Amino acid sequence: MITPELLLRLELAELQDRYIATIDGDRLEDWPALFVEDGRYEIIPRENEEAGLPAPLMLCENAAMMRDRVTSLRHANIYAQPHYRHFLSGLSCRAIGAETAAMGCSYVVINTNQDGTSSVYQAGRYDDVVVRTAEGWRFASKRVVYDTLRVQTLLAYPI
Amino acid sequence: MITPELLLRLELAELQDRYIATIDGDRLEDWPALFVEDGRYEIIPRENEEAGLPAPLMLCENAAMMRDRVTSLRHANIYAQPHYRHFLSGLSCRAIGAETAAMGCSYVVINTNQDGTSSVYQAGRYDDVVVRTAEGWRFASKRVVYDTLRVQTLLAYPI
Amino acid sequence: MITPELLLRLELAELQDRYIATIDGDRLEDWPALFVEDGRYEIIPRENEEAGLPAPLMLCENAAMMRDRVTSLRHANIYAQPHYRHFLSGLSCRAIGAETAAMGCSYVVINTNQDGTSSVYQAGRYDDVVVRTAEGWRFASKRVVYDTLRVQTLLAYPI
Repeated sequence: MITPELLLRLELAELQDRYIATIDGDRLEDWPALFVEDGRYEIIPRENEEAGLPAPLMLCENAAMMRDRVTSLRHANIYAQPHYRHFLSGLSCRAIGAETAAMGCSYVVINTNQDGTSSVYQAGRYDDVVVRTAEGWRFASKRVVYDTLRVQTLLAYPI
Repeated sequence: MITPELLLRLELAELQDRYIATIDGDRLEDWPALFVEDGRYEIIPRENEEAGLPAPLMLCENAAMMRDRVTSLRHANIYAQPHYRHFLSGLSCRAIGAETAAMGCSYVVINTNQDGTSSVYQAGRYDDVVVRTAEGWRFASKRVVYDTLRVQTLLAYPI
Repeated sequence: MITPELLLRLELAELQDRYIATIDGDRLEDWPALFVEDGRYEIIPRENEEAGLPAPLMLCENAAMMRDRVTSLRHANIYAQPHYRHFLSGLSCRAIGAETAAMGCSYVVINTNQDGTSSVYQAGRYDDVVVRTAEGWRFASKRVVYDTLRVQTLLAYPI
């Protein structure tokens, strides 16, 4: 028999895989629906986090702000479209009550640029809280803490 | 209790892991047996796929063609042996009837060249159909769609 | 129902994820406790392994030696602290009796250096034996066989 801990792990791994497949498959319109309506999304550099500085590089305080961001990205032709491939590892998860869990993992994003070269774009970790809803697990918050400090010209896109 | 969807996911993840372990462990002779006998394998650049162009870079229309390719690779000493390490993520799968399923994921291949340098060789996605056989799940088709467009000198080897 | 093979696979994947999360989260003090007390840890280049040469680059013959190494790393300020992110794939596992299993997978380590650049640091494979203890699965031996041969200045740290 599978334990409740391993079953939770499977369910949350499936959510993380769905999350990255949504971004990598360029289905950004589906990205906000992976959060609860008052879900929070932020991207911060590791150095800021370690120094206790709040300033995130990107912050959406609810799903409406995420939808706005997707609309902007689709209409502004400022940015060259990235071709991301996310890879995750080292998943840890921990139930917080019956309907809430904390979860973390490492990520690396491989990007293929306009001339077709693929390289490591960014590494870091996700530090998330998820809640069980009628539609399945959703993000109550996703905190993206990145290690990579070279200029992040593409960071208009969600990671 | 584990759901049928999560169980399918585990079984298919195991098949994908076996697939990449076979290539990365240089057990190419076992590669064709991961397909059904009339299974199809193709590698195509993403740009061709998006443009609706059929021309694949590599195409095997059945397992016999795959076995021939392995024989060629083992006997032709044209190519420096690559040292691939495949990494997969973002697995999605969907049952199509009781004995068939569609599955997709991202991949990145890290290669270590002759002087011992490891780097990103190729990123892309798998777009597969699998069928349940007496020996377990096997590929009915594997479609490798790659993002990376710099010269692919090693593409004689399966990805 | 989940099979015993898939359940073992889930349990061992969880151990590997815990292992890499311990290193990547810089909780090195917890690293030796993932081994049994007489557990063995070694890092060897693939070329040595293929040539049957024993000489490992790092060897700890029990958990006490691992704890000593962590103490040294914490007190010697010789090495710039690496920021590793491990990614695993291609997990295979095989029961050897009721309480022991063999397991292997590929790894790639992405490192972010002092000026904030992230790149492929090392690729290779783990070749492990694990045993079931009262506290769960633990490593009886972990053999790290690396492909990457450029100078490994950071190899004082566990991989």
